Amino acid sequence: MRNIEVCVSPELIHLYDTKGKNVVIVDIFRATSTMMAALANGVESITPIMDLETCRGFASKGYVIAGERNGLAAEGFELGNSPLAYLNQAYAGKKIAMTTTNGTLAIEKTKAEANQVLIGAFVNLKATAKYLIGQPQDILILCAGWKGKFNLEDSLYAGALVSSLHPHFQTECDSAIALKSLYESNSHRLQIFLGQASHAKRLQNHNIEEDIDFCLTLDIYQIVGLLSGEVLIGINQNSQ
Amino acid sequence: MRNIEVCVSPELIHLYDTKGKNVVIVDIFRATSTMMAALANGVESITPIMDLETCRGFASKGYVIAGERNGLAAEGFELGNSPLAYLNQAYAGKKIAMTTTNGTLAIEKTKAEANQVLIGAFVNLKATAKYLIGQPQDILILCAGWKGKFNLEDSLYAGALVSSLHPHFQTECDSAIALKSLYESNSHRLQIFLGQASHAKRLQNHNIEEDIDFCLTLDIYQIVGLLSGEVLIGINQNSQ
Repeated sequence: MRNIEVCVSPELIHLYDTKGKNVVIVDIFRATSTMMAALANGVESITPIMDLETCRGFASKGYVIAGERNGLAAEGFELGNSPLAYLNQAYAGKKIAMTTTNGTLAIEKTKAEANQVLIGAFVNLKATAKYLIGQPQDILILCAGWKGKFNLEDSLYAGALVSSLHPHFQTECDSAIALKSLYESNSHRLQIFLGQASHAKRLQNHNIEEDIDFCLTLDIYQIVGLLSGEVLIGINQNSQ
Repeated sequence: MRNIEVCVSPELIHLYDTKGKNVVIVDIFRATSTMMAALANGVESITPIMDLETCRGFASKGYVIAGERNGLAAEGFELGNSPLAYLNQAYAGKKIAMTTTNGTLAIEKTKAEANQVLIGAFVNLKATAKYLIGQPQDILILCAGWKGKFNLEDSLYAGALVSSLHPHFQTECDSAIALKSLYESNSHRLQIFLGQASHAKRLQNHNIEEDIDFCLTLDIYQIVGLLSGEVLIGINQNSQ
C-alpha cells in the first residue's frame, strides 16, 4: 500500500525522507494557485527562482518576470503574485520567471531527491489527485506555510488532498490524519473558516479579496503542474 | 484582549516570541500526563533533566530517578514514564528527577524567557484553563511532538485548551484556529480518533494500553503543574 505524509512547514522538511517520493508543494495564497492559473492559461513554462535579483535578470532573457515579497508585488516586476493576471490567456506562450516568499523555497528544498515535484492548489485538486493515484510512488505534501509557521490554507489543502487520495493511499502520519479530519469537517464552509486565518486577513488588507476567492475555488482546471528539469509545466490530465 | 498561540513542534519554537508569556508544555504520551499524575499524588517536586546521565546522578542525592527514551524505560532507572506508577500516593513526599525524550527538551527551550512554564495534560485540562484565565499574560502552547514532527495527541490537547480558553483569549494564530476546530469536531470520539495516531500505535506495541487510557482521561485532577525555579510543583486550583 502506498503511503502519504504531510509536512506542515518547510522548516521541518529535514525530518522527512523525500527520496523517490512525489512531493506536492502547496502555497495556496498565492504562489501555487497563481502557477496553476498561469499554466492552465497557456504559459509555456514557469521558472521558479529563489531571490528577487536573479529573477529580475531573467527579464533581459525574454522572460516575463513575476515577483512578490510578503504578499506585495516586488518593485520593477511586470507581474506580482495575482492569479487573475494570467486569466484569458493573457500570457499564453510566454515563459515566466517567478519568485515568491515561501513557495519557491519549498520547491528548492525538495527537488534534488524527489521523484517528481508537483504544484498543488484548490483550483486543480481533483486533477492532482487523479494523477497521483495513477503513480506508484509514495507522496509527501509540503505546506509552504508562512515564514516557517503552520498556516491554515495550505494545511486545509493538504487535508483535502489526503481526503481525495483515500483509500488509494494509507497514512500513519499524524499531520495527514489531523488535516484530513480538519478539511472534512470544514469543507462545507471553507471560505468562512479560512476567513479567520492570519494570512487571509493580511491579504484582505491588501485589497485582494478577488484573489482569495479565486484561490479557494475548487477544480477549475484539469491541468497538473509538474517540475520538469528546472521549469514548471502543465500537463492536461484529461488527455492522458 | 489576551492572545493565545500554538507552536506544533519544538523545532519551530524560534519563530515564536515566548517573552513574558505563560507557556504550556504538552507531551500527552506520556511526559506531561505522568508529571501531573505524580504532582497530584503528592510528590514534592519534579526536576526535569535533559539527559539520562545527569538524571542518573540524582539518585545519589536522594531523588527517585525516572527516565524514558523512545517510549521505553531507561536502564537502571527506578521509574520509566508511566503515570500509573505514581497513583495511590506511591511516591508522596519524594523528589523526582525525570528525563523524557521530548518533554524536558520543550521545557528547556522556553523557561528562560517565559513568564511561567506550565505542564499541560488532559488529566488536568480544566484546572489549567481556569488558572490561565485568571492570569493577565498571553499564552503560548508548545507541543512536544515526536522527534520534531507534529503529533496528534499533543495537537488535540492544544486544541482542547484553546477551546477551553475561548472567549477569554483571542487568536490570530493559524495552528490555534485549526487545532481548536480539530478538537471540537473529534472530542466525542477522542480515543478512537487518537487510536490512528502513530505514537499511540507505537505505545500499544509496548503493551501500555492502560497508560494511554489514563493519559486521555479528562479532568481527574484539580492541580496545576508549574515550573518554580528549576523544579515542577503542583498548585491546588481549588484552594486559590
